[in-house]
Amino acid sequence: MTHQTHRVTFEPDGCNVFVLDGATLVEAAGRAGIILNQPCGGEGACGKCRVEVLEHAPEPTPSDRKHFSEQELERGWRLACQLHVTGDMVVSIPQQTRFFEQTVLTEGKGAFYPFEPNVRKIFMELPSPSVDDQRSHLDRIRDAAGQGPLTANLALIRSLPGVFTDGAGAVTAVFEGGKIQEVQPHDTTGTLWGVAFDIGTTTIVGALMDLRTSSGATTAAVAARTNPQVHFGDDVVSRISFIEKDPQGLEKLRERLLVCLNEIIAELCEQAGAEPESIHEVTAVGNTTMTHIFLGVSPSSIAHAPYVAVLREGVDVSARQVGLRVNHNANLYALPNIACFVGSDTTALMLASGMGQRQDICMGIDIGTNGEIALGNQDRLLACSCAAGPAFEGARIRYGMRAASGAIAEVVINDEIEVSTIGGGPPTGVCGSGLIDAVAELLRVGIIHETGRILGPDEAPRDLAEPLLNALTTFDGQPAVVLAAAHRSKTEQPILLTQRDIREVQLAKAAIQGGIGVLLDEFGIAPDGLTQVLLAGGFGNFIHRSRAKRIGLLPPISNDRIEFIGNAACAGAKIALASRSSRQEAERLSRVTEYVELAGRPDFQERYTEALLFTNAEG
Amino acid sequence: MTHQTHRVTFEPDGCNVFVLDGATLVEAAGRAGIILNQPCGGEGACGKCRVEVLEHAPEPTPSDRKHFSEQELERGWRLACQLHVTGDMVVSIPQQTRFFEQTVLTEGKGAFYPFEPNVRKIFMELPSPSVDDQRSHLDRIRDAAGQGPLTANLALIRSLPGVFTDGAGAVTAVFEGGKIQEVQPHDTTGTLWGVAFDIGTTTIVGALMDLRTSSGATTAAVAARTNPQVHFGDDVVSRISFIEKDPQGLEKLRERLLVCLNEIIAELCEQAGAEPESIHEVTAVGNTTMTHIFLGVSPSSIAHAPYVAVLREGVDVSARQVGLRVNHNANLYALPNIACFVGSDTTALMLASGMGQRQDICMGIDIGTNGEIALGNQDRLLACSCAAGPAFEGARIRYGMRAASGAIAEVVINDEIEVSTIGGGPPTGVCGSGLIDAVAELLRVGIIHETGRILGPDEAPRDLAEPLLNALTTFDGQPAVVLAAAHRSKTEQPILLTQRDIREVQLAKAAIQGGIGVLLDEFGIAPDGLTQVLLAGGFGNFIHRSRAKRIGLLPPISNDRIEFIGNAACAGAKIALASRSSRQEAERLSRVTEYVELAGRPDFQERYTEALLFTNAEG
Repeated sequence: MTHQTHRVTFEPDGCNVFVLDGATLVEAAGRAGIILNQPCGGEGACGKCRVEVLEHAPEPTPSDRKHFSEQELERGWRLACQLHVTGDMVVSIPQQTRFFEQTVLTEGKGAFYPFEPNVRKIFMELPSPSVDDQRSHLDRIRDAAGQGPLTANLALIRSLPGVFTDGAGAVTAVFEGGKIQEVQPHDTTGTLWGVAFDIGTTTIVGALMDLRTSSGATTAAVAARTNPQVHFGDDVVSRISFIEKDPQGLEKLRERLLVCLNEIIAELCEQAGAEPESIHEVTAVGNTTMTHIFLGVSPSSIAHAPYVAVLREGVDVSARQVGLRVNHNANLYALPNIACFVGSDTTALMLASGMGQRQDICMGIDIGTNGEIALGNQDRLLACSCAAGPAFEGARIRYGMRAASGAIAEVVINDEIEVSTIGGGPPTGVCGSGLIDAVAELLRVGIIHETGRILGPDEAPRDLAEPLLNALTTFDGQPAVVLAAAHRSKTEQPILLTQRDIREVQLAKAAIQGGIGVLLDEFGIAPDGLTQVLLAGGFGNFIHRSRAKRIGLLPPISNDRIEFIGNAACAGAKIALASRSSRQEAERLSRVTEYVELAGRPDFQERYTEALLFTNAEG
Repeated sequence: MTHQTHRVTFEPDGCNVFVLDGATLVEAAGRAGIILNQPCGGEGACGKCRVEVLEHAPEPTPSDRKHFSEQELERGWRLACQLHVTGDMVVSIPQQTRFFEQTVLTEGKGAFYPFEPNVRKIFMELPSPSVDDQRSHLDRIRDAAGQGPLTANLALIRSLPGVFTDGAGAVTAVFEGGKIQEVQPHDTTGTLWGVAFDIGTTTIVGALMDLRTSSGATTAAVAARTNPQVHFGDDVVSRISFIEKDPQGLEKLRERLLVCLNEIIAELCEQAGAEPESIHEVTAVGNTTMTHIFLGVSPSSIAHAPYVAVLREGVDVSARQVGLRVNHNANLYALPNIACFVGSDTTALMLASGMGQRQDICMGIDIGTNGEIALGNQDRLLACSCAAGPAFEGARIRYGMRAASGAIAEVVINDEIEVSTIGGGPPTGVCGSGLIDAVAELLRVGIIHETGRILGPDEAPRDLAEPLLNALTTFDGQPAVVLAAAHRSKTEQPILLTQRDIREVQLAKAAIQGGIGVLLDEFGIAPDGLTQVLLAGGFGNFIHRSRAKRIGLLPPISNDRIEFIGNAACAGAKIALASRSSRQEAERLSRVTEYVELAGRPDFQERYTEALLFTNAEG
């Protein structure tokens, strides 16, 4: 039988998730896309992850008693990191407990970015011109803004006579940094929106943020789509190949992407009841190839030795010129990349985690279609890219799938193989965390050898329980393991883990393990020197630390130092939207981070080869 | 008979002009469009206006003997301000004697602008990228430039892969201020051009400048055209009316203007053998209405009380976006205006004269279709606009014409009326300087009364010579004076000065005289407090100081303080092109200059009414 699952409802978001019995509320929230702030790393020490359990609050823990008054405890206040879900519950998560808002609004562990959007609106009632006050329209606005010198482009200047047609001086000026972006008649300060995009190779996420000073940088809507470029190839190299073969290739890929981005913008606006015309700024992160394609810059040189990008730094360009359907004068800030294979999504991770401003040393790992790793502190920063491939996203795995409803996300082996799915229904496939669990558990009970080979019934440990022996089968002439039998799966077909699947996991984890090892060596520290390992990516929120360590995917450090930070790429894009001063830090991170090229490094080759085995596995 | 004229040929320019016997070489050069530097105001004191008379050098003056060695005198070196033309001659004018180059390259009387164009080219042989040097294309260029942070726009970034297609690292980067404007394959530093435009209501002048560091800011070609907008009205107000009546009016006027500007660019390129693609920057000055129309900004609010411009300050915009056929990435800097009726042409005059940086107080007067006056020094600057109308350009005058071949440019009355024309041929009409001369001389001999009335034969002084009495006639029932009889004119019609013509001159000079008076009062000085009166405009080079003072057009100060500075508007545009630091001074001048609105000022009304009379006339 499968593990028991519980439904957790989050307020005010109103979304439900199903989690395994005993999971912490932090992980449940992560599954709902809500990342909680845990400065102490989930040890119940800092008291920051405060939530209010509205229905079915469990008994308070000793940590709860330390951080809440008797009255608060009665009302249901608990620390999320200490709360283990043992039944259905309804939980309210206040703004200040949420990761992003915490990072942006207050001084977190490392990063402090004030809420100070690059765009802002000021309503001004300008005095009527007279013979004694013949200042130009533009001077009038500039003087009223009471700021330093401001620039304006031709389109803005050309629009001014129309705005002042009726002689009325009641206007709203939209400022973008030191530039007057737009002047609108009357008071329009009631709305001011921005959109942050994370343009992944496989998935694109957009977030609509309320940028009014009064809003405190709330996220009003989030939407995601599969990157339509996947039709042209799963990975960046195959897309670059397409661009090189088809003279219109770059434009074709760019157009597909823009259709998708504009659909996301429309959906965000519909969710929040916003007008695209009120979106005055867009920020975007992505890997270096995605950034190039998005901006219409040929990424060809990225794919060929010696691997050179056209553009590293961040750019401010007209969002309309790029093709986004937002306000005509809106600005697009594409965050800076670090190297050809370490894009602005990694810069965003570093920005969101504040790792470049901290004294202690931490490591950020973003496992998406590829794996990027950043390591360091305020004194030195390293980054590398591991050609891990998309195995953990379910690709190239026989019954692989994304972390969606019906995906096996957890596997426990006692006397039999017990699986738990996202949503709690019958399984349809296996996602990254399920894959890690399955391999880790099969290794532990001895069904998989340290070389990765699935042992035959005759080779398996003698004390193996009957149901486990029965799970051993073959597929396409290769050994395989039945994770869920046909009568239990939604598809009425057994869900198998094949020998080939395990090879894919080996290759992927070896690439990441090798990259982590090289970065640690290069920095000159042992895994123990890391204060924290920050796991980013949708993937990161669902994997089980111990099992990821058991297969060697994560370095051997204590679980409490491994923190899930959710979609840090998107969080970084949101920070850049909410805080203009954070952009300087992003540009600095891009400049100072040393890119470590793994290809061709003998020490990487050695570590990679070693890591193909599961010998480092720990219990 | 007419005065004797002489031909003066200027080298290395190779152009000829005809001047009256006794004219100074400075005035002759001015007629050829060559403005000489005269820091001492033409007193033969400073020795800066050195020229070499190649043929028919006159006897050296005492000043010449002070400033040149015997050997130099023998070779023909003379001071232009002391040289009176008494025969045909050929003169070579070295670069350092010319006004503009002097102003730009060395410390002149007031202004010092280093030769430091906003655009510059750098040829760089970039090291080939390698696994050890994976800097982005853009970083590679930035590092090679060895300068501070540089920006780049999307078009530039998109062009880079094409430039680096063949992997070659030999490129020329075009820098525009702190921006990379373009990157070109191979070494293109052999050419770098800029164009300076003076967009007058009536006349447009363009100058092509060599902006290579080695060139010392030489002017390679100059071309002029009549502003085709004259079809829509003579003055700015009638053009604004057209824009207000026709919904497409602004675009129609703008298109006409652009056709003309592009013709000038083509002509300049042909003259100098340059490619439009090699023009990387354009500067432009004009009155405020012309600047607005040129930029596509509605000038409507300029024409109506309380008279407000949309734009005062200077702007940097894409030259292509504005419609100029130059390099795709070229920048256009439109110099800052001062007020609705004091445009960037006046800013340019102040810039070229350096009056805003001087301790002594001087006045600049630019008489074009209107008259603009600037007054002040480094501590305070005033400017006003006089609705003088186009009389001095020949408009609204019965036989009026521009200062072109056949125009009566000088009038002397002894026993008869003697006229001298531009080019020396038979007269076809009368231009501004001829008009001033004629009125001044007719006043002197008593044919015109101080009220401006032409006296009848019975009222005229009794001692009037017979030929003068015979010159009195009538036209259209009004008194008139024959300047050239039918048998002497090219048209075989008599060239008359009518009573109505004299009224036009009265109105025009009263407006300027009134404006000068108000500015002097406002500043709190008498005419005698002026170190210099700088006369700008094509017109300014041809008028005779004493006669202009006699009719009251110029304030009563000694002739040696009145200096002709030629097309100062164009000179200012050229300075802005040659020296980026001068633009800060232009912006400062635009900000600090106090605009004095004459309309509705009682003191102006009083002075204007007084000035309608010729009572201030001096001998």
